[in-house]
Amino acid sequence: MNDKLLQEKTDAINDCIYSYLPKADTNTELIVEACNYSVRVGGKRIRPLIMRETFALFSENGNEPPILERFMAAIEFIHTYSLIHDDLPAMDNDMYRRGQLTTHAKYGEAFGILAGDALLTFAFQTVLEGMNEISDPVQLLRASKALLVLSQKAGILGMVGGQCRDVYVEKQNISISDKKLLEYIYINKTAALLEASALIGAILAGADKEETEKIQTVMTNVGMAFQVRDDVLDVISSQEVLGKPIKSDEKNNKTTYVSLFGIEGAGKIIKEYSDEAIRILDSLEKKNNFLRELILMLVDREK
Amino acid sequence: MNDKLLQEKTDAINDCIYSYLPKADTNTELIVEACNYSVRVGGKRIRPLIMRETFALFSENGNEPPILERFMAAIEFIHTYSLIHDDLPAMDNDMYRRGQLTTHAKYGEAFGILAGDALLTFAFQTVLEGMNEISDPVQLLRASKALLVLSQKAGILGMVGGQCRDVYVEKQNISISDKKLLEYIYINKTAALLEASALIGAILAGADKEETEKIQTVMTNVGMAFQVRDDVLDVISSQEVLGKPIKSDEKNNKTTYVSLFGIEGAGKIIKEYSDEAIRILDSLEKKNNFLRELILMLVDREK
Repeated sequence: MNDKLLQEKTDAINDCIYSYLPKADTNTELIVEACNYSVRVGGKRIRPLIMRETFALFSENGNEPPILERFMAAIEFIHTYSLIHDDLPAMDNDMYRRGQLTTHAKYGEAFGILAGDALLTFAFQTVLEGMNEISDPVQLLRASKALLVLSQKAGILGMVGGQCRDVYVEKQNISISDKKLLEYIYINKTAALLEASALIGAILAGADKEETEKIQTVMTNVGMAFQVRDDVLDVISSQEVLGKPIKSDEKNNKTTYVSLFGIEGAGKIIKEYSDEAIRILDSLEKKNNFLRELILMLVDREK
Repeated sequence: MNDKLLQEKTDAINDCIYSYLPKADTNTELIVEACNYSVRVGGKRIRPLIMRETFALFSENGNEPPILERFMAAIEFIHTYSLIHDDLPAMDNDMYRRGQLTTHAKYGEAFGILAGDALLTFAFQTVLEGMNEISDPVQLLRASKALLVLSQKAGILGMVGGQCRDVYVEKQNISISDKKLLEYIYINKTAALLEASALIGAILAGADKEETEKIQTVMTNVGMAFQVRDDVLDVISSQEVLGKPIKSDEKNNKTTYVSLFGIEGAGKIIKEYSDEAIRILDSLEKKNNFLRELILMLVDREK
């Protein structure tokens, strides 16, 4: 991976996301500050990156419609809201993320809940404001379909569903003897939003059915590899590198791919998922080398 | 108000809302149950009622497009999510609503947070699935505009914004010496979703700019009257009638229209707002007597 190019592309995405952040008036200063804080704390911006690069992969001429950047901001707002709610005392009860105070730790629990609600709602508002300016019916249909995918992948049959199953399994202290349930949780909790990112890029670029299905499967595999790698990093990394406490899974007696298969076994599983992702990506006629490099980086990340 | 007619219309709305509730598979049983429970606990279904009756008021031929019922379900899902989150321990910490256990009291705090997130996301999904089936560009544009209004009125510049200001004022123990701030909170916390209900009905019916603005102002006034009446009911009603503990504002030392102006003063304010609502409604050329009766009932409710 060309680090300079990655940095440039990430910077451009940050500019885009920040430009769509909610603006404050006298009565909304604190909630807007909490939303801005949560988004600006940072992150790798993987989802908007995947979206833009998938659009570039499938687009005929590479000309981005204005709505694409709104979707890029929206998916990052949704990702951020999910982290805010995930960190709440009733959920994972985390005080730090990326080396910074979590939203509820900084602004109080009520504002943690409300900042999450605000960002989730604002994600849809951001896209819908853009849709209101589209006059071409084909473009409007594509945007409407892409927003439907976002709502599906972020909801009960996607991210929230995975989250619920995760909480349920944890609270009930069920030991996950077969990996099917863990797989369900990872596919929904993590892979769903990566799939949405690629699907939205593909839909806006006018990709055909086969291309759209393939890029979705690529991302399911990337998501699985990414999340199993998370299990491994929780054991082998350090708080300095990750920006959050390590060995939290072990402490919470959480079933993970590492607790089920050991570090080496988990490593093999990661390789299977990443090989499959690359195999399907390479089977596409259209190419985007940066996206390929990005995927290789994601499945083999250090933090 | 014709009670039988109101009951019939409410029953029809319940059928509609229930038909759009999320369906469960093996992995989503508990979250879907929590969402269903929260919606089915009941309520007056004011928002979908207002939406349908406003559509009837402005529609040329009265033929409802299929998307209208999806919006009716969606706004009730959003209203329900806001109650679930509002009842959480970090917010109002209420164990009962409408005589039944609140969602977090029944399913635990984590599922309270997640059921709210799920319903909010599902509200958008419900409408977007319907939009995906619209082939007429004019209808698609109207639906897209109506969904934008929903996101705006439910978000930072609407319901969530009002909620945040309410929490902030409470936690900081600021005494509200002028009524401007209280008015801001009520307009956003309560009136915003009533405005959205009427606006969506008007937009889908193709109402003109003046009609749309007028019906919005009607609902701002209805919302204010409704919420000030809430302050009064908290003092003069009983737990049996309301289905929730009374005198909670006094106990929490909360500034309300009653604490500022007394019961009589608050009553006068309610009358001003409701007179204004009816005056503007009556200034419209188009008429819907049921909507008029509904508004009169809302501003003078007993529970």
